[in-house]
Amino acid sequence: MTLPRKDLFDLPPGVIYLDGNSLGPLPRHVPDRVEQVLRQEWGQDLIRAWNTRGWMDQPARLGDRIGRLIGAPAGSVMVGDTLSIKVFQALSAALALCPGRRVILSDTGNFPTDLYMAEGLIALKDAGYELRLVAPEAVADTIDDTIAAVLLTEVDYRTGRRHDTAAITARARAVGAPMIWDLAHSAGAIEVDLTDIACEFAVGCTYKYLNGGPGAPAFIYIRPDLADHASPALSGWLGHDAPFAFAPDYRPAPGIARMRVGTPPVVQMAALEAALEVWDGIDMAEIRAASVALCERFIARIEATCPGLRLISPREAAQRGSQVSFAFEHGYAAMQALIARGVIGDFRAPDVMRFGFTPLYLDAADVDAAADILAGILDSRAWDRPEFRRANPVT
Amino acid sequence: MTLPRKDLFDLPPGVIYLDGNSLGPLPRHVPDRVEQVLRQEWGQDLIRAWNTRGWMDQPARLGDRIGRLIGAPAGSVMVGDTLSIKVFQALSAALALCPGRRVILSDTGNFPTDLYMAEGLIALKDAGYELRLVAPEAVADTIDDTIAAVLLTEVDYRTGRRHDTAAITARARAVGAPMIWDLAHSAGAIEVDLTDIACEFAVGCTYKYLNGGPGAPAFIYIRPDLADHASPALSGWLGHDAPFAFAPDYRPAPGIARMRVGTPPVVQMAALEAALEVWDGIDMAEIRAASVALCERFIARIEATCPGLRLISPREAAQRGSQVSFAFEHGYAAMQALIARGVIGDFRAPDVMRFGFTPLYLDAADVDAAADILAGILDSRAWDRPEFRRANPVT
Repeated sequence: MTLPRKDLFDLPPGVIYLDGNSLGPLPRHVPDRVEQVLRQEWGQDLIRAWNTRGWMDQPARLGDRIGRLIGAPAGSVMVGDTLSIKVFQALSAALALCPGRRVILSDTGNFPTDLYMAEGLIALKDAGYELRLVAPEAVADTIDDTIAAVLLTEVDYRTGRRHDTAAITARARAVGAPMIWDLAHSAGAIEVDLTDIACEFAVGCTYKYLNGGPGAPAFIYIRPDLADHASPALSGWLGHDAPFAFAPDYRPAPGIARMRVGTPPVVQMAALEAALEVWDGIDMAEIRAASVALCERFIARIEATCPGLRLISPREAAQRGSQVSFAFEHGYAAMQALIARGVIGDFRAPDVMRFGFTPLYLDAADVDAAADILAGILDSRAWDRPEFRRANPVT
Repeated sequence: MTLPRKDLFDLPPGVIYLDGNSLGPLPRHVPDRVEQVLRQEWGQDLIRAWNTRGWMDQPARLGDRIGRLIGAPAGSVMVGDTLSIKVFQALSAALALCPGRRVILSDTGNFPTDLYMAEGLIALKDAGYELRLVAPEAVADTIDDTIAAVLLTEVDYRTGRRHDTAAITARARAVGAPMIWDLAHSAGAIEVDLTDIACEFAVGCTYKYLNGGPGAPAFIYIRPDLADHASPALSGWLGHDAPFAFAPDYRPAPGIARMRVGTPPVVQMAALEAALEVWDGIDMAEIRAASVALCERFIARIEATCPGLRLISPREAAQRGSQVSFAFEHGYAAMQALIARGVIGDFRAPDVMRFGFTPLYLDAADVDAAADILAGILDSRAWDRPEFRRANPVT
């Protein structure tokens, strides 16, 4: 397949969309598919659609589609809930594998909800667990045999810095600490090979690079040799071995199915299922190569024309995800000005202008145009207008 | 408003739908609304829609709409996740209110996922908790000052038997045990006044009588005087006091907002939001009166014409929800035969034929026709055909 595939997406005219790392755009065929699910499947089949339309198997079916993109074998990935919930499931299962230790290791670059969910789990267990946060660069050296689980996001949501998943996982394995990778900014963005990394758990979301739509469900992976023994803390009925037996006692389903919880969001899943068809025939190596080219081009052009901006993403492509971030004192206002001109990126406090690059629907001309518009805004100080100031600074 | 309002629903021709207690039918205007969310909000506004289209406030806005139907004040109900997750949140918050006790009381008529989630929480806490199950009739007398929380579903999913929520809650309050009511078969079906009941917590789902669509999200209620102190075990970023500050430490939002977890399923929520408009101007007392009339009519007609069926729902309307269940030895096959004739109810092992009555789209003529078709099937032993036998008995 030749990239980009702009024809597959319904992007507004005049928009250069550099925020697919927050919310991917609408794949063109999704609305018709969702309408069919609503009018035909729900409307006409009603309750029967759980069987006649394959709703019950949808979470596993989607898991397999995603698995192909992250190097996970069929039957090892399950879709459902939100990333926060999946982090909770993975972490509680990880702690159960390592009952004698009490330190959960993460880093200051992790997305806050991962840390918050760990805090909640620690409070719930009330057994002396500690969440230890270190700088991203210090993670590998901090892993020792006191660590009960390592919980990291591969790509830093602010800076785009990328962890060495293989090396850190190997280090964790050497001391017997289960490893959980959050692939929120990896799945659909960079090459991931979970089989090769051999981490115990992985989680991720589908509304960023996978374009599943706002609030699309998350996914969880368990290494196949562990899945039959993983402890499902959120033991809902659809993770039961025989949900329709309505037995009073929970008995986990074999394998990854035990990570299902409640009734899945069929309509939301249908949007994701249609969106995942975009990936048919796409090679992640090709996506990655194109992404690197776009990112490098953007960095070069911004550094040549916008001296006020400072690159805070790693300069070396191998150490970066599929986004580029610059620090700029007036970053908030500059991003508003940029969005007003049709270039949509986003801002993260205190001063980060963040740009995601998705070769599915972006090409070199888009990158050049976006960089030139930003340079124009900085040259003319167009950001220094009242309408671009922050109304409610984040506190 | 005069009931029924069949014009608001898109029901297949020839179908009498008596399974709205499993999955409500499609409100006619839902597909257009969802299409607008997909094409306009997601497609055109992209990431901006979180603010421009009110996505961020949607869970609270929907909570308030549901609140009106269950006697909960504005700001006390939050929509999100699944019922299993909301049970987990309510139960963990309840246990935190009563730290010195170790018995969670429920009954054998509760829906299994509630019990499974309690089991999971108990295993996670590993602090000597016990899930005690008693017969529904024995609940009130079992509540004493050893009980850490009472977790019950108001209406039994199998029999339609209804608990006396006010009396049981008063009993729990008298011994200082927090009370959680699962309103899965209550919301939109019968009159509920949470303010009057004064229970600490309530949860429910929206895909049954509220017609929110397959996998529509759940809701949770916390009594307003407790909400600012409730412990959010699943402490996700959207329950944070300032989610976009991306602070490393969790600080719960005031009130019910702390029961938000991850990114909400916007598309699925949009279907629910449209579906809830059906309830505008509807008085739950009117719904309840019409529901009782339909149920009584069905019971009378079945008992007059189907001697092989035995009523297992309470005979007295006040002790019943909005469903009627009959035991029949060949219930599975008879239900398949009935569905083949366009009358959709459902079956629950071992021998329960279950019929939900929803006055929004059912009238006396539907009830009579359904009963007559069932009588015909029994008279002719039409259920005794190979195509209606169970292929895979539930084990």
